[in-house]
Amino acid sequence: MNVAGQPRDVRAVYRGRMRAAVIHGPRDVRVEDRPDPKILTPGDAVVRVVAACVCGSDLWPYRGVSAVKKPRPIGHELVGVVEALGADVTSTRVGDFVILPFTMSCGECQACRAGYPAACDLVTGFGSTDRWGNPVDGAQGERVRIPLAQHSLFPVGRSEAELEAAGLVPHLLSLADVMSTGYHAAFSAGVSAGDTVVVVGDGAVGLSGVLGARLLGADRVIAMSRHDDRAALAREFGATDVVAERGEEGLAAVRDLLDGDLADAALECVGTEQSMDTALSVVRGGGRVGFVGVPHGPDLSVRRLFDRNITIGGGMASARRYMETLLPDVLSGAIVPGKVFDLELPLADVAEAYAAMDERRATKVLVRP
Amino acid sequence: MNVAGQPRDVRAVYRGRMRAAVIHGPRDVRVEDRPDPKILTPGDAVVRVVAACVCGSDLWPYRGVSAVKKPRPIGHELVGVVEALGADVTSTRVGDFVILPFTMSCGECQACRAGYPAACDLVTGFGSTDRWGNPVDGAQGERVRIPLAQHSLFPVGRSEAELEAAGLVPHLLSLADVMSTGYHAAFSAGVSAGDTVVVVGDGAVGLSGVLGARLLGADRVIAMSRHDDRAALAREFGATDVVAERGEEGLAAVRDLLDGDLADAALECVGTEQSMDTALSVVRGGGRVGFVGVPHGPDLSVRRLFDRNITIGGGMASARRYMETLLPDVLSGAIVPGKVFDLELPLADVAEAYAAMDERRATKVLVRP
Repeated sequence: MNVAGQPRDVRAVYRGRMRAAVIHGPRDVRVEDRPDPKILTPGDAVVRVVAACVCGSDLWPYRGVSAVKKPRPIGHELVGVVEALGADVTSTRVGDFVILPFTMSCGECQACRAGYPAACDLVTGFGSTDRWGNPVDGAQGERVRIPLAQHSLFPVGRSEAELEAAGLVPHLLSLADVMSTGYHAAFSAGVSAGDTVVVVGDGAVGLSGVLGARLLGADRVIAMSRHDDRAALAREFGATDVVAERGEEGLAAVRDLLDGDLADAALECVGTEQSMDTALSVVRGGGRVGFVGVPHGPDLSVRRLFDRNITIGGGMASARRYMETLLPDVLSGAIVPGKVFDLELPLADVAEAYAAMDERRATKVLVRP
Repeated sequence: MNVAGQPRDVRAVYRGRMRAAVIHGPRDVRVEDRPDPKILTPGDAVVRVVAACVCGSDLWPYRGVSAVKKPRPIGHELVGVVEALGADVTSTRVGDFVILPFTMSCGECQACRAGYPAACDLVTGFGSTDRWGNPVDGAQGERVRIPLAQHSLFPVGRSEAELEAAGLVPHLLSLADVMSTGYHAAFSAGVSAGDTVVVVGDGAVGLSGVLGARLLGADRVIAMSRHDDRAALAREFGATDVVAERGEEGLAAVRDLLDGDLADAALECVGTEQSMDTALSVVRGGGRVGFVGVPHGPDLSVRRLFDRNITIGGGMASARRYMETLLPDVLSGAIVPGKVFDLELPLADVAEAYAAMDERRATKVLVRP
């Protein structure tokens, strides 16, 4: 169904051309000409990308862990300026500076109303197809058509020039995914005042999880990190301790720090078998694990949860919801989550952005069209 | 280690004899002579059993689903009167009427302090061996030695005669396990005011879960039940709706009741693959599942939780903690959780107690020594 009654053949609608990143296979991301997006349904917007970035989850297909069946546009994090709006979109105006959550959502279904837009009945990802069969661009490009724009666009309320001048663009961009995802890990782990929290994973999401745990009131945050630069940023984000060891040795180090006790909660921010095992191991009986790493490990033993009364929850972050929570702290400078970006490259160099993250030369790369 | 410095050979300590239930194998539970329990460590108590009962989890070995490697005393729910106390036990006095949680706990380790005594570092079950190598009796018998008695015994504060006269014994007995376990399912599912909750399982635990969900503020409780008598008790305990269908049809029936929506939370009170699948299916995106059925199903797909942002938690109930919460309501008659007992038999007929539950002629059987 095409709710606008527009032609289904996008070639008839896409007239101009733009530059955007396309993944062709393992370690093969190219910048290519793509059709310039246009409004296809009354619920659409077209957004000019001001800044995008590369996500740890983009590395799964880049590394060949997830299959790339055919070339597709990639990237799902962006801030930008609204260029065009469908007739039904009243929540923003052309010219507004907006943040996009990494999934679009309707705002009306039960999951959206309950505060879980990433579990929306109509959830739509970047670089895919919307529920009306129309293609959705990737975020690593010059422009993007945004379906479900009424709820998905989050206007910041300040101009592009003002936000650029204040150096706020990277911090706002972090709310599109990485900071919201770190916060979701802490939220899903039920972190509350006085908790001791272990963060498993020192990528950009793990670092954001440290910040999220502190924002939710954790007294003590133990970051598991083997990289000096990341450990330093973890401390800047509020980690009280850093453990470099992994596995059994990591567990022993946590116990040492806590005088034989374990954590109240753990944030699993990687998605591998080992990271999940560590997260489950470092919490006390009755402890809680929040997980946001895209699951690539085996199924979970219910008995293991049962025997130690562990609660586990997580998934894709409620980014659209947390933007509202976190924006005031970003605008005031109370938090500086964009510090996870340690490299900025032009879109033309997006292949290098991927390589730098793949080879751990960068934690997270911001890309400017 | 024997902390009391007592002889390890229990034959030297157990002098008298008592009657107690012993499971020998599938559908083979016998009442036998057993050594009369004595104080073996300064932390022990000996309790005379006033009432015990048969648990749904006792049916796992009875039905041969769990192996019975050698004959062992069985039963883990009891109320009784303290007959003897070790030198270190100051929390109760001889003659006190007490409830025992279905696992003994130290009250001092991190899990106990955090309110999860069933995940105690020294957790000790009935019909097993304590951490000092001494045997622990089953609860379906005349007397039981209780290790870790300082924290495990819960004195009710009224005399046996008074409680019997008031007809409160079954209700107090329910706090030993079944009511606490139902409450734990609701607590683990994070049930709070205004929630819509589906309860999967109409055994005594599921029925108690209905009551638990209402106590925690659920507005609407849908009990999945195929038995008229259990459905009636579910309604008496506060269920607003009953769904008799299972599987896909059960899910459709829940959706119908909720005008296309799903539940905020579900209580998994069985422990099978189908019951867990149903619990995961009936909650909305961002929903919560509390599980207390001893897990007999397969491992859990992390991806399934991730994709719908489901939180799951549970395990053995914090019975020792919930007794404190629930006792006032039992003593006042505000709740009557002992209504799950629909048959009472003397200990001599314990085999019939098992058969009646196995054949679903009874929901839960109270056994009087």
